[in-house]
Amino acid sequence: MAALGDQSEAPPPPPDQQAMASQNKPISNIVIIIAMQTEALPIVNRFQLTEEPNSPFPQGVPWVRYRGTYKNLNLSLIWPGKDPVLGVDSVGTISSALVTYAAIQTLQPDLIINAGTAGGFKAKGASIGDVFIVSDCAFHDRRIPIPVFDLYGVGLRKAFEAPNLVKELNLKVAKLSTGDSLDMSPQDESSIIANDATLKDMEGAAIAYVAELLKVPAVFVKAVTDIIDGDKPTAEEFLQNLAAVTAKLDLAVEKVINFINGKSIAEL
Amino acid sequence: MAALGDQSEAPPPPPDQQAMASQNKPISNIVIIIAMQTEALPIVNRFQLTEEPNSPFPQGVPWVRYRGTYKNLNLSLIWPGKDPVLGVDSVGTISSALVTYAAIQTLQPDLIINAGTAGGFKAKGASIGDVFIVSDCAFHDRRIPIPVFDLYGVGLRKAFEAPNLVKELNLKVAKLSTGDSLDMSPQDESSIIANDATLKDMEGAAIAYVAELLKVPAVFVKAVTDIIDGDKPTAEEFLQNLAAVTAKLDLAVEKVINFINGKSIAEL
Repeated sequence: MAALGDQSEAPPPPPDQQAMASQNKPISNIVIIIAMQTEALPIVNRFQLTEEPNSPFPQGVPWVRYRGTYKNLNLSLIWPGKDPVLGVDSVGTISSALVTYAAIQTLQPDLIINAGTAGGFKAKGASIGDVFIVSDCAFHDRRIPIPVFDLYGVGLRKAFEAPNLVKELNLKVAKLSTGDSLDMSPQDESSIIANDATLKDMEGAAIAYVAELLKVPAVFVKAVTDIIDGDKPTAEEFLQNLAAVTAKLDLAVEKVINFINGKSIAEL
Repeated sequence: MAALGDQSEAPPPPPDQQAMASQNKPISNIVIIIAMQTEALPIVNRFQLTEEPNSPFPQGVPWVRYRGTYKNLNLSLIWPGKDPVLGVDSVGTISSALVTYAAIQTLQPDLIINAGTAGGFKAKGASIGDVFIVSDCAFHDRRIPIPVFDLYGVGLRKAFEAPNLVKELNLKVAKLSTGDSLDMSPQDESSIIANDATLKDMEGAAIAYVAELLKVPAVFVKAVTDIIDGDKPTAEEFLQNLAAVTAKLDLAVEKVINFINGKSIAEL
């Protein structure tokens, strides 16, 4: 219990005021989380980030940190790396949740940006190459048909919306649904429709979950590589468009970072 | 580069020898990971574990550590806790991967035991209340139809099999398939069959993934609450049998811990 009568030292500000203070100081430390090397390298090059020789992460994990300074910002780009056995990018919710947790613990960012490619629904207004800021994240492959567990499975949460950023950069805003499959089963499709999602990816809602637990604002920048309700097979269309769409993603991330520079969380 | 000519100090043993040494010393530090409070509390009580007042985990996460000593063992039971917003157990792959990572980083266990309930296939020999040790883990809801990524999605890996433990305690051995849904879609079913699984759960393969990355042996003890290829709805059967099967799980975990006490990893 607090010693009520003791006024000899000014007490620390209550948590609400601390949070407000951190909302109003200029953002200095940004962690960008990107699942695939093909998506990450253009951004690494654009901001002249370099791979840190001494990984801040434990021995055994394949996670890679690229770091650098850009204008007034310390930028870290975290890529979950190649699977140690199979040599492919460590995509999906588990790796992205783990790197988000580890990056927050180690680097204490003011803001997380998850940038990446996504599938889009043309019926909801998405076209190949469109870049979106995400308003809401949810899962579409965690069906737990027990009351309240069902809501936990869906895991709907708001992203940090950054209204000024969206307005200034004239970006589209949409809802995102996340699952660990590149394809879409009929059950996935029903859940994606229930989630009212325009975008489908394999990481976003997992990163949103961890960022919310640890109270770090997270912005999601998603570029459309494939039209899910179109006539081309997803994997083929995804691989065909990956390089070109990644170039658009890279430009969008540059604009977002330039907008953020010098601003506080409250000003986004 | 190593100073080749300098023989004044004995060099540290090479990593292989270090690993062998740790395989041969008595196990002293065990982390038990259990997803649901109903599954965890009987084990907490049996070993007279107490909730640690100062959580070793960061502010904001709901993860709970119970600890105690039993014979020659330091036991920590980690339960991912209740979702801070919804108040239900934080089940599924993301929470279990996160607590496995955080528990290994913080507590440096010699061995991880994941104990929990699972669905079982009667066609593969499972009955309600059966307790299994898992030989292999894989995922059934991570379909990525691109070469090599498909294997990454399935994420097949061997568990630590503990042949002496299995023989001495006369336990059944089976393969486990993991996914984030309590129900089973036709696509899940195809993947579970491809995984040759007798058991279906929502955490095992995620814990196996993190334990393998960080090179900690992991044993999986799974008790069957519901028959997936039977005629009762999964959620109903699961809830109906949860308490009774948890009692069997609890007894099995006690026997496993008693067997481990005083032994090395190599002796399991």
